[in-house]
Amino acid sequence: MRMIEWRDGVVVTIDQTKLPHETVILKIKTIEEMAEAIKNLRIRGAPLLGAAAAFGLAITAFYSKAKSKEHLLAELESSANFLKSTRPTAVNLFWAADRILAKARGFSGSAEGLRELVIQEAQLIADEDAEANRAIGENGATLISDGDVILTHCNAGELATVEYGTALGVVRAAWNQGKKIRVIATETRPLLQGARLTAYELKRDGIPVTLITDNMVGYVMYKRLVNKVIVGADRIVQDAVINKIGTFTVAVLAHEHGVPFYVAAPKSTFDLTRKAAEVVIEERNPDEVTHFGAHRVAARDVEVLNPAFDITPLKYVTAIIHESGVYYQKDFAKFKK
Amino acid sequence: MRMIEWRDGVVVTIDQTKLPHETVILKIKTIEEMAEAIKNLRIRGAPLLGAAAAFGLAITAFYSKAKSKEHLLAELESSANFLKSTRPTAVNLFWAADRILAKARGFSGSAEGLRELVIQEAQLIADEDAEANRAIGENGATLISDGDVILTHCNAGELATVEYGTALGVVRAAWNQGKKIRVIATETRPLLQGARLTAYELKRDGIPVTLITDNMVGYVMYKRLVNKVIVGADRIVQDAVINKIGTFTVAVLAHEHGVPFYVAAPKSTFDLTRKAAEVVIEERNPDEVTHFGAHRVAARDVEVLNPAFDITPLKYVTAIIHESGVYYQKDFAKFKK
Repeated sequence: MRMIEWRDGVVVTIDQTKLPHETVILKIKTIEEMAEAIKNLRIRGAPLLGAAAAFGLAITAFYSKAKSKEHLLAELESSANFLKSTRPTAVNLFWAADRILAKARGFSGSAEGLRELVIQEAQLIADEDAEANRAIGENGATLISDGDVILTHCNAGELATVEYGTALGVVRAAWNQGKKIRVIATETRPLLQGARLTAYELKRDGIPVTLITDNMVGYVMYKRLVNKVIVGADRIVQDAVINKIGTFTVAVLAHEHGVPFYVAAPKSTFDLTRKAAEVVIEERNPDEVTHFGAHRVAARDVEVLNPAFDITPLKYVTAIIHESGVYYQKDFAKFKK
Repeated sequence: MRMIEWRDGVVVTIDQTKLPHETVILKIKTIEEMAEAIKNLRIRGAPLLGAAAAFGLAITAFYSKAKSKEHLLAELESSANFLKSTRPTAVNLFWAADRILAKARGFSGSAEGLRELVIQEAQLIADEDAEANRAIGENGATLISDGDVILTHCNAGELATVEYGTALGVVRAAWNQGKKIRVIATETRPLLQGARLTAYELKRDGIPVTLITDNMVGYVMYKRLVNKVIVGADRIVQDAVINKIGTFTVAVLAHEHGVPFYVAAPKSTFDLTRKAAEVVIEERNPDEVTHFGAHRVAARDVEVLNPAFDITPLKYVTAIIHESGVYYQKDFAKFKK
């Protein structure tokens, strides 16, 4: 299933804040609507954010009244900056916007020609993500054995990508090869992407899944109930994988128990010009921690930390599965070149 | 503040499932009401469960129509078995019930005399817990330095004990000595004892506290935002500390980051006749994980694990603070004798 589609000036996707209880279709026609959807996690998941940013620029191009190429380019740059201001950590959003801007800057035709080019490039970005995920699935499935119990954190599934998923793409590919595997999904506080999205997506596809709270990861490792971990990534830098808050906690526990810890992500997630210390970790609204919906659960006026991501140094990562193959520890040294 | 009191045949305590939003006083007059309150966590916290079990037997004694000592003893044994069936893991409940039964069995006077004895012994158990916690606080405070940031999991505070708290008793004692410390409280899924109880109790007493989700423990350790961990215990056995689910996850992270991991618990929590493998880990209702109150958050029909406790091998424990002093790694070998 395509999670995001371009239909003649309308970007069609699912409001992920309403899942799993309601399937609400979003029809986005303005850059403001796109920014709002990204900011409020109606659209989320690193690879999907790349496609969303690309289609955001396609919207700008489609509705622009610019008569000159230069004027349209200025509008695209303005839209790109606006989209980049929504979420600072996941790199795919920046990568997709910059890819389209680079193409646009190098274009020498008319405003109309540039309009076409931007829309085509956005569609290409979406198509490439779908293809990359299938390749990631195939490459990752070679690491999965019949009988494996695979722990995953957050949702790096179809819902996080244009199609098929990254971490769950690997699960899906192994399952489709007939390997009898099971998944343990962490609920992923504060926004419960594991309980809401991963559990939903795997149940829908008939892949066995067991839900746990995040603090049960130590318990399931101690009890030897899990023998592999696969997660996605929001940004892979020279020295670390940056992913959903809680990933590092899982990685340390896997390391301590000798459980392989795999990251599955397309090349668009790699940002090898930077180290982890240079990346801004998004701090989100404390209400996400203190409330469930409109209902406050925590004691009043308590101070809160709410980083959306954490940093897993590469020493804890067994391998990174991407669309062209698998990087192992021995390959990570190349990231610094 | 006394969390549990005996008032002429009525056990008075606070319904902890309603905190922090409402302070609902429970007045318990039957063994069935006591069992229900324990089972549904209206009364929770290992040391408080000891006092609750003791007062449960006091209720049986107080209202008994038994004319003979033997008859009353049989009623007490029946009540003790009923209370012990509520929650299998926390040992203090068993310890308190068995302590009273042992006294009762050794008593040679009248039914009236035994009635008095049981009520007195229950009050003594409660008084001793309050004293033990103050001693734990004093002993533990020697390990706390000015400026420390202390991470705690679940609620091992005043609300978990007859008075003062174990892990939070140490925090309270250090604070009262004028040490400028801060606490990071994990929310403690699924039942949010950290967000609801620890945050509330510390805010009330003016001790600085920051709330995090359980999966942020790795992040705060990585960022060096915490330099000590103190938790309580539900049962300490020869080879491990058994405590609220998530404790082991915190312990592994502390170990990996060289952060001291302290356990604070009275002697009534020690069960050195057993190893961890022999202890039943209570598995609770899946709805605790899939729902918030009446509202379902997780995908429908997903399978769930919901162990209430986990097992932390002693190699991860820096020291155990108790009412008579502190046990360090070198002392743990004695647990097996």
